[in-house]
Amino acid sequence: AARCARVVEAPWFNIAGFVVIMVNAAALGLETYGPVVRTAGAELQVLEYLCVTGFVVELIVRFGSHLSAPAGFFRDRWNLFDLAIVVAPLLPGVRENVTLLRLLRLARILRTFRLFPSLRVILVGIRRSLPGLASFLLVTVLLLYGYAMLGWMMFGTAFPDRYGTVGQAMLTLFLLLSLDGITDTLQAGREVSGWAVLYYVSYMVTACYLLTNLLVGVVLTALQE
Amino acid sequence: AARCARVVEAPWFNIAGFVVIMVNAAALGLETYGPVVRTAGAELQVLEYLCVTGFVVELIVRFGSHLSAPAGFFRDRWNLFDLAIVVAPLLPGVRENVTLLRLLRLARILRTFRLFPSLRVILVGIRRSLPGLASFLLVTVLLLYGYAMLGWMMFGTAFPDRYGTVGQAMLTLFLLLSLDGITDTLQAGREVSGWAVLYYVSYMVTACYLLTNLLVGVVLTALQE
Amino acid sequence: AARCARVVEAPWFNIAGFVVIMVNAAALGLETYGPVVRTAGAELQVLEYLCVTGFVVELIVRFGSHLSAPAGFFRDRWNLFDLAIVVAPLLPGVRENVTLLRLLRLARILRTFRLFPSLRVILVGIRRSLPGLASFLLVTVLLLYGYAMLGWMMFGTAFPDRYGTVGQAMLTLFLLLSLDGITDTLQAGREVSGWAVLYYVSYMVTACYLLTNLLVGVVLTALQE
Amino acid sequence: AARCARVVEAPWFNIAGFVVIMVNAAALGLETYGPVVRTAGAELQVLEYLCVTGFVVELIVRFGSHLSAPAGFFRDRWNLFDLAIVVAPLLPGVRENVTLLRLLRLARILRTFRLFPSLRVILVGIRRSLPGLASFLLVTVLLLYGYAMLGWMMFGTAFPDRYGTVGQAMLTLFLLLSLDGITDTLQAGREVSGWAVLYYVSYMVTACYLLTNLLVGVVLTALQE
Ligand code: NA
Ligand code: NA
Repeated sequence: AARCARVVEAPWFNIAGFVVIMVNAAALGLETYGPVVRTAGAELQVLEYLCVTGFVVELIVRFGSHLSAPAGFFRDRWNLFDLAIVVAPLLPGVRENVTLLRLLRLARILRTFRLFPSLRVILVGIRRSLPGLASFLLVTVLLLYGYAMLGWMMFGTAFPDRYGTVGQAMLTLFLLLSLDGITDTLQAGREVSGWAVLYYVSYMVTACYLLTNLLVGVVLTALQE
Repeated sequence: AARCARVVEAPWFNIAGFVVIMVNAAALGLETYGPVVRTAGAELQVLEYLCVTGFVVELIVRFGSHLSAPAGFFRDRWNLFDLAIVVAPLLPGVRENVTLLRLLRLARILRTFRLFPSLRVILVGIRRSLPGLASFLLVTVLLLYGYAMLGWMMFGTAFPDRYGTVGQAMLTLFLLLSLDGITDTLQAGREVSGWAVLYYVSYMVTACYLLTNLLVGVVLTALQE
Repeated sequence: AARCARVVEAPWFNIAGFVVIMVNAAALGLETYGPVVRTAGAELQVLEYLCVTGFVVELIVRFGSHLSAPAGFFRDRWNLFDLAIVVAPLLPGVRENVTLLRLLRLARILRTFRLFPSLRVILVGIRRSLPGLASFLLVTVLLLYGYAMLGWMMFGTAFPDRYGTVGQAMLTLFLLLSLDGITDTLQAGREVSGWAVLYYVSYMVTACYLLTNLLVGVVLTALQE
Repeated sequence: AARCARVVEAPWFNIAGFVVIMVNAAALGLETYGPVVRTAGAELQVLEYLCVTGFVVELIVRFGSHLSAPAGFFRDRWNLFDLAIVVAPLLPGVRENVTLLRLLRLARILRTFRLFPSLRVILVGIRRSLPGLASFLLVTVLLLYGYAMLGWMMFGTAFPDRYGTVGQAMLTLFLLLSLDGITDTLQAGREVSGWAVLYYVSYMVTACYLLTNLLVGVVLTALQE
């Protein structure tokens, strides 16, 4: 147990873990290249087995370092995540599902956040900003919903594929936040209703001002703590 | 009265109020889906009546909590807003106007801001940044107006649909702030006047620099308070 | 003199000055509407004369308030600006030039910055950020110039209208900062050179990172002072 | 040696150095204009020789100022950079390569950063923000990689030119960060898979929130130091 704890503390342990993640990611990525799969499919399969072995070994060593008090092992959520990623592919129902298996292999990349201290700091910062983010998203959804209802009332019959239902209108307005094609959208709207200019200009000014204001507020509040 | 005050203070009161707003918003949204209206129009109507009942009950309870000093009830602007939303649909002239009735039902969504303390904080922050926003908008309008006059003088005859009047030119320049289609706009301008590059580049640099500068200033000033 | 000074200090003096500027701007704007000019051209001309009278009166009152020490009047740059705007249209060479006269009338709008204290604060902030802005622009120009030379070497013969000369290439890259049509630009570049992806991706990452970094630095430094 | 040191300290020395860089940059830029090269090619060649002479003289003076302790000269990385730029064009292999020679002449522009103290401050700030930038880029690459694998699984067969391999998908998603053509991309995706809306909306929200958050964090952290 003490030896395991020492291994876990050693810097090369994290580096080895990162190498396994990178090899795993590279193997996953190479499988998207048709020619590579045809000429080196077997080798990729071997790499995948090596990676799984690496993850299992890492997990055993980490468990070993908690051998005197196994409950401590399960209290760290990262350990539960690692365990789930290793065990899930063995479950029936998952075993045969190629898509699910691939998603699980993809999820292993998230383990990078565990190994880099600087990334863990970022994760903490993001978690801290989540309450602010919730308010931010709520205001955004309210704004989109209000303008979507107005848009449906104004353009619902003229542009059924854009404003035909409130859900479609919300998607249209969300995409409009990217300011992509705003000139054409406004032009089309003006031919339908004289209120179109007021509708779109007020939407853009409100959305830009409100969202910038809230986003900066959320980010700075999270940074100050 | 004391019982009403206790009810208003209870956390479930706000939650119930939020549920009514959400049901109201969902009913409003579902009415934009043709098939839903055809198969469940009557149920939506019932939901709408339930929501109105909910709003009225909430209003009565809130009034009840102020029974000993009714003036205090009317001093809170939110109570006036709630009252207006409930009473307005009964007024002649409004009663028959489908669009107005729908807008009033939509306005009820704004009540969300009353119920969430975190949203109320945001509202306060926005209200505090309004003086800065006024300066920001004034500078923006002055900038747009100045460049619109220049644009009308340069491109008024060549592009009458974009720069034909100062109002149209201001709209064109406002949309150009989205940087959408700037390459084509500049190309078209160069064929008319040799000053087009200077005009557009100076506009973009000035607008981006000035507006970023002012927006950051307004947001940070409001945050610091 | 003392009475003039009291008038200049009075709040209604600034308000009256602002009204004159607004009337002047409105008259200028209305002249861009063909029908208005045809039906009310004479009235617009009268308005213009009234505005000039207003500006002259304001200038005389301000001069009057400095009557005991006229040098102080000329030390305020705004007074010089006001004087130039009133006197310039009378000069030969300017008097006959419709474009110049219109630009001078447009320049009067800038006087708004003199009358609003909050706008004067903004002007001071902008002036303070100018040294930082100079560094910012120098770095931007260096970046554009370097990438423009590279772009000319890579795409000069393939896209002569975009990268034919270093000046044209700088304009192309400046417009690319708007991220407008980046997908098509990259696609076209890939067909010419295998380095195109590296060229454009490195340009975008460098430009976004560098310019965001510098802009935030300039704005915050100016705000802190 | 002392006289050299005094010369290096003098303000006109930096100004002269900057003039040589500007002349060098102008000569380089003028060579991209066909007519200029035809009519004044010889003069440009002379300018180029003058610039090289200027750089060599500057280098000798700087070396002279360190004559008592030449090791100090080589400890400043800028001196090594200047030396490399002057010596490299003489090396065989480089001498005959027009592209390499041009890149070396272009690299001389970077010397501007040495001469302006305000630019040196910016360089220091950028260097200080590099560790944060590394985390920022790592998170960005992880996000792009994860969504690229998902995109390949969803759209790999439907849009082989956009999501055919994980590398191509990463490029597509990187370009999508510019929000250019997002409406069309989403529309095309919806025809292939019902998850497309969730995929793109979650990508855009995550990317915008995460990258804004990290970028602001990196920039402000670097500014505070
Ligand atoms: Na765009
Ligand atoms: Na854009």
